[in-house]
Amino acid sequence: MSEPISLTAALASFDVLWSPRIVTKVNDYDVRIARVAGEHVWHTHDHTDEFFLVLDGELRIDLPDRAVTLQRGEVFTVPRGTAHKPSSPDGAAILMFEPTGTSTVGDRHDDVPAHVDATTGHALEA
Amino acid sequence: MSEPISLTAALASFDVLWSPRIVTKVNDYDVRIARVAGEHVWHTHDHTDEFFLVLDGELRIDLPDRAVTLQRGEVFTVPRGTAHKPSSPDGAAILMFEPTGTSTVGDRHDDVPAHVDATTGHALEA
Repeated sequence: MSEPISLTAALASFDVLWSPRIVTKVNDYDVRIARVAGEHVWHTHDHTDEFFLVLDGELRIDLPDRAVTLQRGEVFTVPRGTAHKPSSPDGAAILMFEPTGTSTVGDRHDDVPAHVDATTGHALEA
Repeated sequence: MSEPISLTAALASFDVLWSPRIVTKVNDYDVRIARVAGEHVWHTHDHTDEFFLVLDGELRIDLPDRAVTLQRGEVFTVPRGTAHKPSSPDGAAILMFEPTGTSTVGDRHDDVPAHVDATTGHALEA
């Protein structure tokens, strides 16, 4: 069995943006953390909700008919099937819950820019 | 669709100990928060892992052969089938991620003391 993990230490272990690390697993779900800045890409998860918790900074999530802005310590769940585009002009650190295997760019997405990592999450380096 | 929720505000909306509130749902999982102090009860979830994130204070989790202590910003997943007893001498605020319907005292447990709420989580009051 593993040891407790400090999210601060985990975030300090990488600096790539929009490239989530899997901190721990809960059944068939991942707990992922990411450093973000600038714009992600419009995308939709057809089969899963996506949970966001802002650990530091401010995260904006554009939705089809509005946008929400999350400050540090705020949470929001994007319902399945809802197009969304995360962004953070000044940078943020976020935590996500989502089923293992969920792609960062969903099942449908706009063209993925080079700075966005299309991935199902990376292992946290020890 | 809901609005972002501040965990600080959500924690300020109740003061009962060991009585989790459901902040949001992610598919068939709950994101729950709880205020804790003193000792919970030894219990085991036979069918699910249980994720803990400490939002404030310090949480101890006794396990069959050791104990782990989580500071603010630290995470730990108790594997399914593993007996555990959370406690916090000085009090803490925690976030949990677990399947909807999961009981706070698991599938097997010691006698539940009066100060522990045996529940599948309560709705957050607006």
